[in-house]
Amino acid sequence: MPNVSEILDLAGIFVFALTGALMGVRKRLDVVGMAMLAEITALGGGVVRDLILNVRPAAFQSVGYVLVPLVATVIVFYWHPHVTKVMPVILVLDAAGLGLFCAVGTAKAMEYGLSPLHATVLGITTAVGGGMLRDVLAGEIPTLLYDRQLYAVPALVGSATMAALSSYGLHGWPATLAAAVLAFGLRIVAMRRKWQAPVARGDGE
Amino acid sequence: MPNVSEILDLAGIFVFALTGALMGVRKRLDVVGMAMLAEITALGGGVVRDLILNVRPAAFQSVGYVLVPLVATVIVFYWHPHVTKVMPVILVLDAAGLGLFCAVGTAKAMEYGLSPLHATVLGITTAVGGGMLRDVLAGEIPTLLYDRQLYAVPALVGSATMAALSSYGLHGWPATLAAAVLAFGLRIVAMRRKWQAPVARGDGE
Amino acid sequence: MPNVSEILDLAGIFVFALTGALMGVRKRLDVVGMAMLAEITALGGGVVRDLILNVRPAAFQSVGYVLVPLVATVIVFYWHPHVTKVMPVILVLDAAGLGLFCAVGTAKAMEYGLSPLHATVLGITTAVGGGMLRDVLAGEIPTLLYDRQLYAVPALVGSATMAALSSYGLHGWPATLAAAVLAFGLRIVAMRRKWQAPVARGDGE
Repeated sequence: MPNVSEILDLAGIFVFALTGALMGVRKRLDVVGMAMLAEITALGGGVVRDLILNVRPAAFQSVGYVLVPLVATVIVFYWHPHVTKVMPVILVLDAAGLGLFCAVGTAKAMEYGLSPLHATVLGITTAVGGGMLRDVLAGEIPTLLYDRQLYAVPALVGSATMAALSSYGLHGWPATLAAAVLAFGLRIVAMRRKWQAPVARGDGE
Repeated sequence: MPNVSEILDLAGIFVFALTGALMGVRKRLDVVGMAMLAEITALGGGVVRDLILNVRPAAFQSVGYVLVPLVATVIVFYWHPHVTKVMPVILVLDAAGLGLFCAVGTAKAMEYGLSPLHATVLGITTAVGGGMLRDVLAGEIPTLLYDRQLYAVPALVGSATMAALSSYGLHGWPATLAAAVLAFGLRIVAMRRKWQAPVARGDGE
Repeated sequence: MPNVSEILDLAGIFVFALTGALMGVRKRLDVVGMAMLAEITALGGGVVRDLILNVRPAAFQSVGYVLVPLVATVIVFYWHPHVTKVMPVILVLDAAGLGLFCAVGTAKAMEYGLSPLHATVLGITTAVGGGMLRDVLAGEIPTLLYDRQLYAVPALVGSATMAALSSYGLHGWPATLAAAVLAFGLRIVAMRRKWQAPVARGDGE
């Protein structure tokens, strides 16, 4: 089912690009800066993963991967107050992108012969790398490092699940979907219930 | 004509390194920090391009590429008030470096089999990547993301032109020169006429 | 002697991870952020080196490299006031890590056919790259760019020594150890005597 997985991939890229372009508006970047931030947010995690796998990044082999963030930029440029209004929807879609990217990233890493542990690390990298680059380029400490929300942890659980399934011979889109849905669900529950990661005592709180 | 292109390359690296070392003075870095910033500004864009192309970076195959930024550092360290006085000249030379690097970067990406669209993206990366790393390491949001000056757009036009020429079979230094001059001219005109990229309305202005 | 060099490597990773996790406490990151910063600080320099060498990063081939920073995170999370109290010890161990990483990084680069000059650059990158990433992700200008302490210079001396020894046919752990000890000693003396790198006059001081 190449079409389904490609459409899902592009959907994930679209949502991540929206968050990049919205950060651009918040930081009063010009439209060129918005487009660059949208591209890097959407594609950065996968590019870093592929550099580490020592293969040419997927983003540089597909026209859609480059064009979709530009579409997201145009939408945010003209209609960002409307986009901001549907932020709860975007957060849900972002959780879906997180789930999808961690599962797909881990699966690709396993395919290229990494151990389950290292594939898990690369799955997390795929899912959160673009957002970290977005925050650093916008002059901020990456949100997921300090905001105590569980964002990397669902990616960790999804990636580890994918790596486990894959090492038991369960590849293909059903396994990927299962791992993605698990990470997505965990992220949604963590948001709803406001679960928090602990902070070190003393200086830390 | 390897000599001409090598000399142009080293000249571009020299100017980019000057801007890195000058940023170091402005941020009160010590001389070691200045040298590191000069190296990363001058070589960063090309290194990122080559990592994505999955080849060993050109900067790590040429002695001149590493030494020229050190020369720029020494000059800025001892004579930075004089260097700052000729800033208008440096901005013109920086525009020349921008033009050259986007054309050379795109040509190399086409050579390695990338599509014209992706070669254009890598051309822009080559031209602006080092400056973005410079700004991030200096603790600032990359200038080109917010200052509304047309800096990435001339690189885009030059890269797209190079990609188009190359995909019609026009390689070699005349094509590269034409694309570089186009980007350079556009950048100069944009500076003179103070053309500005638009900012999203509402929060953005 | 693979065991000795592996243990030394893991010890260096452990100390670098401690500095990453401690930065996390100082910046009030949550435990997930601390772990991510510990991993990136400990492994970042070597990963960048291996990307430039165009080989799969060593950190993604060894389980220990990924697990040791997690151990450092747990220790800092629960006992960071105690860890902070032994900071002078940590600074000495960090100097040992600096020495080791610059020597090992340079040796690996020579092995992969880089020139002594470029191998020296990659040795410095191995030693200081992780710390630079740590500082950027923590929202700060990398310390070693401005604090005038000699940190990169000992790495430069150690790397250049390793490159020289290696280009005269002296490989293996005795040569690596000699270069590492030289860089380590120079760093310790620089700390004790408070040697300072110069800053450009005028704007700079």
